[in-house]
Amino acid sequence: MSDRKTIQEDDDVLLFLDVKRTFLTKVRIGQSFHTHRGYIHFDDLIGRTFGEKVKSSLGVDFVVFKPNILDYTRKMVHATQVIYPKDMGLIVVHSAIGQGSRVIEAGTGSGALTSILANFVGSTGRVYSYEIRPEFLEKARKNIERAGMLGRVELKNKDVALGIDEKDIDAVVLDLAAPWTIIPKAYEALKGGGTIVSFSPTIEQVVNTVEALEAEGFVGIEASECIARRIKVKRGQTRPETLMIGHTGYLTYARKAIKEA
Amino acid sequence: MSDRKTIQEDDDVLLFLDVKRTFLTKVRIGQSFHTHRGYIHFDDLIGRTFGEKVKSSLGVDFVVFKPNILDYTRKMVHATQVIYPKDMGLIVVHSAIGQGSRVIEAGTGSGALTSILANFVGSTGRVYSYEIRPEFLEKARKNIERAGMLGRVELKNKDVALGIDEKDIDAVVLDLAAPWTIIPKAYEALKGGGTIVSFSPTIEQVVNTVEALEAEGFVGIEASECIARRIKVKRGQTRPETLMIGHTGYLTYARKAIKEA
Amino acid sequence: MSDRKTIQEDDDVLLFLDVKRTFLTKVRIGQSFHTHRGYIHFDDLIGRTFGEKVKSSLGVDFVVFKPNILDYTRKMVHATQVIYPKDMGLIVVHSAIGQGSRVIEAGTGSGALTSILANFVGSTGRVYSYEIRPEFLEKARKNIERAGMLGRVELKNKDVALGIDEKDIDAVVLDLAAPWTIIPKAYEALKGGGTIVSFSPTIEQVVNTVEALEAEGFVGIEASECIARRIKVKRGQTRPETLMIGHTGYLTYARKAIKEA
Amino acid sequence: MSDRKTIQEDDDVLLFLDVKRTFLTKVRIGQSFHTHRGYIHFDDLIGRTFGEKVKSSLGVDFVVFKPNILDYTRKMVHATQVIYPKDMGLIVVHSAIGQGSRVIEAGTGSGALTSILANFVGSTGRVYSYEIRPEFLEKARKNIERAGMLGRVELKNKDVALGIDEKDIDAVVLDLAAPWTIIPKAYEALKGGGTIVSFSPTIEQVVNTVEALEAEGFVGIEASECIARRIKVKRGQTRPETLMIGHTGYLTYARKAIKEA
Repeated sequence: MSDRKTIQEDDDVLLFLDVKRTFLTKVRIGQSFHTHRGYIHFDDLIGRTFGEKVKSSLGVDFVVFKPNILDYTRKMVHATQVIYPKDMGLIVVHSAIGQGSRVIEAGTGSGALTSILANFVGSTGRVYSYEIRPEFLEKARKNIERAGMLGRVELKNKDVALGIDEKDIDAVVLDLAAPWTIIPKAYEALKGGGTIVSFSPTIEQVVNTVEALEAEGFVGIEASECIARRIKVKRGQTRPETLMIGHTGYLTYARKAIKEA
Repeated sequence: MSDRKTIQEDDDVLLFLDVKRTFLTKVRIGQSFHTHRGYIHFDDLIGRTFGEKVKSSLGVDFVVFKPNILDYTRKMVHATQVIYPKDMGLIVVHSAIGQGSRVIEAGTGSGALTSILANFVGSTGRVYSYEIRPEFLEKARKNIERAGMLGRVELKNKDVALGIDEKDIDAVVLDLAAPWTIIPKAYEALKGGGTIVSFSPTIEQVVNTVEALEAEGFVGIEASECIARRIKVKRGQTRPETLMIGHTGYLTYARKAIKEA
Repeated sequence: MSDRKTIQEDDDVLLFLDVKRTFLTKVRIGQSFHTHRGYIHFDDLIGRTFGEKVKSSLGVDFVVFKPNILDYTRKMVHATQVIYPKDMGLIVVHSAIGQGSRVIEAGTGSGALTSILANFVGSTGRVYSYEIRPEFLEKARKNIERAGMLGRVELKNKDVALGIDEKDIDAVVLDLAAPWTIIPKAYEALKGGGTIVSFSPTIEQVVNTVEALEAEGFVGIEASECIARRIKVKRGQTRPETLMIGHTGYLTYARKAIKEA
Repeated sequence: MSDRKTIQEDDDVLLFLDVKRTFLTKVRIGQSFHTHRGYIHFDDLIGRTFGEKVKSSLGVDFVVFKPNILDYTRKMVHATQVIYPKDMGLIVVHSAIGQGSRVIEAGTGSGALTSILANFVGSTGRVYSYEIRPEFLEKARKNIERAGMLGRVELKNKDVALGIDEKDIDAVVLDLAAPWTIIPKAYEALKGGGTIVSFSPTIEQVVNTVEALEAEGFVGIEASECIARRIKVKRGQTRPETLMIGHTGYLTYARKAIKEA
């Protein structure tokens, strides 16, 4: 992350009105950004500090943030299912990746999870992301590039069912319709003790995946679901929100034990 | 992470029997590790590959893993409340840290969350962890050192309510009994757009914290709870587990907007 | 419940298209019922058996049900908060009412919960329902009458905070903004061992209510929340529904212990 | 329910110490009840009012309650899976039973759900409860009799898969290992518009049951799960309980539409 604190031309900025209304855009001299709450002249931002407030033409305050990795992923267009922060967090922690990790992801989708994984493996790590659909891959490439993570990612337009090119991998992360078909390939790619995390919306996918993991000799197999509830906090009126996301998907975790020769 | 794959003297190993029975120990020539399922001679491990199976004296298979960051934190003795992976994951993703991030943590506790944060900021990042109780700090130091993260952590035996020494911080992570008292200090320490994440078991702590964040001009304030359910997966008998952890704590997120002068 | 199985003039019928599209109406000779899927001639229903299918003018099948008590309550217009079946069920079971029970309810609201309580106390029981707002009471009266429960209900346009007229009551059911203010009145009205159940959306209401119950000497005080998840069941695609009702309210239970003189 | 308020010989009493420590026993002249908090002389209870406190020989206060229907079911010994109040409530409300309803239950199990159903159909209703295991049936009979509900229940030592003897039934309630095998029998027994509610611990049971209901022409098929969380309420320390029952079972609801001849 650059430590520069003042806004310059061509910087990405997140214009923040409230939690549900944020706008990710790029600072372009002489232009302005239009919102339903007035427009913002980019020239007014130059030289300001990230985190300051700026007034729109209608006098409404926006905070001008430097987008962080979560902001970028939240703005990625989702033609596919969304991966929520709650699931991203569990994937990152259970895959046990860190600086220098080499990770396989399949499929790439919008590139949101790819970017998160790349963020956490650092500049010495590598995310090899497989995606069979070329149109997704191009969109993902733009998303990942915008998030500043493309240097850590190798995008591969290849069916992961045909094999994984890499070896001695630290972690495999699957977000596929039929993850169980990939388990033998994941086994080959992983180093001993390497982790696998699979995200699936339906319970039948989980059952199939767990059976495939058992068949391949993975150990430490666990499946779980994470339910996130937003709380409406106001003294005297505090309560969980009425409407919530009830389900995104199940996560299945396991670890490679080396089979005896 | 070292890429060496074979086990040597003085390596930490995780002896894995099943999900609930794992043992973290160090390889010592001439010695052995005793379990209720037989003992394992460390000499038998030398030269083996991490992830291979080894038989105990009773003929029981153990997998010998190289401990990963999650293994280390799970073995840290918890005199304080435990931070679960579900909460760790949300903290890491919502704090939006990454390689090079500078993070304030208070309090240090067992050092488990400290180690996770250190894992994700990488070798160029820094975790400044405040803890008022010296006895916790010493225990945490040992835990963090064992996890290989001490080089990225500065442990401070200081009451964070008296002030935070660092400036231009990327993220503040609070796990304190009265987090709301620290919010003004967190504001001063954070850079514009910096994130704050607070973990609290009770709803009254959340209400107090949200009010303090609002008073200090933080924006994007959200509170949520994450409920993790383990699923017992077996074809024909699949169901959530009967007994579960029903509550660990609430997480409150916010972001620093710079106040007008 | 009448045991007559064939449909006659002036019978209420529930025209069922699917779970989300049902229509409660009354059979009127010579008239028809219009839906977006065609109209249904009431004359065609006469002499048919409840539970049979009837075709609309557009050839769409509707099932003609005799409305049951749950159907009636689901069709009551809710100017106030809705009581969901999950909460109704807990109220009915924890209040431990049954045939002949005498129950206080406050407030009446739409009359939905009133009707459910009346259904379960039977023709020898009695629900005394207090409501301060006359306009709610009139609407509720119509709803309860339609559900066939008015003979078991005494509607009282009175502020329950001013006192409860009845004594030796089996159960008190509260759905009020400030239930804690009513606890002393509930104590006086209840017989020894009588139950109280209070429904409240916010956690602060629960804390206040529990304190008031403790102050009044109630025992067996418990608070809980019930989260109902609908499951989308289809072989190979089974999963909890994406969007769900995340919160309706908390239920607080207690029981009257007689204070020593 | 008898309206007598004073305690007599041979009355059942619930000795209440706290929510987790209650004792259901019968008043026997000249005898006493022993607890770890001292013994209680039954003679001291005679003539007292239900709901009053009585002191044990160690000076500890117990409240002497007249057991209600929920107390009785909670004290039934469970050789089988327990039905929790949350599930009882949903079964009672979704089956839409009431005074005079005729209900099929299979299997009887401990008789707890049988007693609850009997409580809500009143003295003019009837619960026909099928149980294949004679030893369960005898235990259940004692439980139901103690709860005062035996007059409303017909216990049948018969495999419900061999057929249901009754016709024009209002509701069928299933708590069986293979409920889907019973669906055609339930269809035959139910009147048009009659309800069916099935309780199953595993998701595969639910999928099989939903398919069987669809095949038989039932409509309004819904499956759901109810998660009950107990809240620890204490001002300043309010939070859901740490350990909770994470899963009991799924409930499947449907309604009989009469098939065309």
